Amino acid sequence: MKINDNYKNLNESYLFSTIAKKVNDFSLKNPDTKIIKLGIGDVTLPLCSAVIEAMHNAVDEMSKKETFKGYGPEQGYDFLKEVIQGYYKKNNVTLDMNEIFISDGAKSDLGNILDLFGQDNTVLIPDPVYPVYVDTNVMAGRKIVYINANEENDFLPLPDNSVNSDIIYICSPNNPTGAVYNREQLKKWVDYALEKKSIILFDSAYESFIDDNNLPKSIYEIENAKKCAIEFCSFSKTAGFTGTRCGYTIVPNELSFDGMKLNKMWLRRQTTKFNGVPYIVQKGAAAVFTESGQKQIKENLDYYKQNAKVIAGTLDKLNIKYTGGKNSPYIWLKCPDNMNSWDFFDLLLTKIGVVGTPGAGFGKNGNNWFRLTSFNTNEKTKEAMERFYKLFKT
Amino acid sequence: MKINDNYKNLNESYLFSTIAKKVNDFSLKNPDTKIIKLGIGDVTLPLCSAVIEAMHNAVDEMSKKETFKGYGPEQGYDFLKEVIQGYYKKNNVTLDMNEIFISDGAKSDLGNILDLFGQDNTVLIPDPVYPVYVDTNVMAGRKIVYINANEENDFLPLPDNSVNSDIIYICSPNNPTGAVYNREQLKKWVDYALEKKSIILFDSAYESFIDDNNLPKSIYEIENAKKCAIEFCSFSKTAGFTGTRCGYTIVPNELSFDGMKLNKMWLRRQTTKFNGVPYIVQKGAAAVFTESGQKQIKENLDYYKQNAKVIAGTLDKLNIKYTGGKNSPYIWLKCPDNMNSWDFFDLLLTKIGVVGTPGAGFGKNGNNWFRLTSFNTNEKTKEAMERFYKLFKT
Repeated sequence: MKINDNYKNLNESYLFSTIAKKVNDFSLKNPDTKIIKLGIGDVTLPLCSAVIEAMHNAVDEMSKKETFKGYGPEQGYDFLKEVIQGYYKKNNVTLDMNEIFISDGAKSDLGNILDLFGQDNTVLIPDPVYPVYVDTNVMAGRKIVYINANEENDFLPLPDNSVNSDIIYICSPNNPTGAVYNREQLKKWVDYALEKKSIILFDSAYESFIDDNNLPKSIYEIENAKKCAIEFCSFSKTAGFTGTRCGYTIVPNELSFDGMKLNKMWLRRQTTKFNGVPYIVQKGAAAVFTESGQKQIKENLDYYKQNAKVIAGTLDKLNIKYTGGKNSPYIWLKCPDNMNSWDFFDLLLTKIGVVGTPGAGFGKNGNNWFRLTSFNTNEKTKEAMERFYKLFKT
Repeated sequence: MKINDNYKNLNESYLFSTIAKKVNDFSLKNPDTKIIKLGIGDVTLPLCSAVIEAMHNAVDEMSKKETFKGYGPEQGYDFLKEVIQGYYKKNNVTLDMNEIFISDGAKSDLGNILDLFGQDNTVLIPDPVYPVYVDTNVMAGRKIVYINANEENDFLPLPDNSVNSDIIYICSPNNPTGAVYNREQLKKWVDYALEKKSIILFDSAYESFIDDNNLPKSIYEIENAKKCAIEFCSFSKTAGFTGTRCGYTIVPNELSFDGMKLNKMWLRRQTTKFNGVPYIVQKGAAAVFTESGQKQIKENLDYYKQNAKVIAGTLDKLNIKYTGGKNSPYIWLKCPDNMNSWDFFDLLLTKIGVVGTPGAGFGKNGNNWFRLTSFNTNEKTKEAMERFYKLFKT
């Protein structure tokens, strides 16, 4: 048996293991320092009560013969697809029911969607980047071209017509930079994709952090995007589902390449290699869209946004440049004195016991940048940023 | 963008939609006939109380900050892997914890595992077959060679040394035939795989139906199988998890091809393209292995086995040949008078209102065979087989 040789080309990432080791070593030597982690990429607030109640009810349904659920539709139950359809409608995006696929998370579908594409495609990926976009394409042996996201373009690169690409990754609000494309910028990407006959894989996992109504929450708010884009979204950050696992992928009926409808191909892929999301989880996810669910998740989102505000406010006072901090749970800051991001990591850890993520871990354009996140408690975030302020005020 | 052209080579399956249409048409014309479905491939009994209780507790944990769970390990929580390790131990199979990967079902992992293998492999698939083995390989453009499972070999084909193959599918107890390999037969496959340096993908989704202690429940009961086989199992049929979604995949540390450890490759694949099974579901799955859980799932399995016994007993009385019926939820019978399986389907539907699955839907060797399943109620199964007996007794 011949293995998939492309796996030999994967780089091991030591980003988070290196961070863990450095923090551990420091803790052992400085047991009195209260370390505050602002590197967390995971939610910390519990599931809201509307979701909890719906899941308890669903568990009860599974306990009785009359209401027990066996295999469900691979693409998800209508009760969930309908409320997602309604959610999009509020942003003036009309979706057909068959365009909505319930998934166990954006990460799975962002990887699995590549099954539909030939190996001989060029992939356009921004640097810095969520490493999954890179690794999934390395595994398939595709050629990758990077586009610079940097200070000059406010970490929102625009298409370069001289570059040809077939598969384009866009994450907005962005991980790690927190930068968000506006309508005009996103339209440039849609126009480019249509001209080049490329496909955009649009990761909108952080859309629920967008407060500014002028910023698009879905790429389908841009005219003709249905002809060139697949959108991936998730309940992970919206409703704290990182350990509960549910998301959705939109594959428009208009998407057609080489005479094949991608929607039909994806349905075939999912019915062949997937068996749907647990009924209990889908019931929980549907409760997110009830009146009480929406109110409750807003409270949780506001809690995280308050942290982002505290971090951004401190950086403003210190005149430190950053992207994100609003419309995003991430704050991407320029290391003072143009420090290397690992040196800056060490400085924060050793001087004030605050942990973040070095930008270098996300690509070369992150070498002098640093990611802070808003997922710790209000109290700890406040304290961390007070320490931060004291360290850098002149 | 170039699509994956291999999708153009997929055959549409109309098996279950054709069956549904025929049943529907008949119902409309014969509203008084009480149709009994023995074609059901899904469990019908509710989840057992041990699982229900564990899931309620897990939902409660998700509602409190102190016990809330975010991202878990992609390969599954230790609490679940430990009880699976203990379960294998009972069958004298020793597994390392890192060899066990928790999945959202055997179907997903049977498809996704192919990511690890090169395109240029020849795949050996028995006919008749669970169609997913075929379609997932067609999607990847691999060459498929079929091996006949038929009356001559009791639907348990053995390796032919003159045939070369790289990836071998074995499902035992088999879907659709219900046939189960014994140790000697399975050893022949292991020896063949080791000689040819092939990999066996062993689907043991129906192992919990095995009552005969002489029959292997895991391929690792065979010496040296850890050097050539990956095993896929599921809680779907064992504990009624078809709509709850949990399974496990064993990738032994000994498995090495071309200098690469498959275990390490699969870990990399899963951490890149998967985010783990919901915490709540893993808690439910772990409860299957408690004393009360084991007792309760046995009661459910015994219920289905009683149906298999009723079906097999009727066929015995009528001298109709079949495989399965014991150690399996499936009964695979030879259509009387060597009828074509679709004609036999029509006969059963129109004469006695009983629905099964034509063997032709699983491959050419099923053309004169027919699948009945044990997942309906005791009462309905008994009634269906009484009608069946009356129709065929001479």
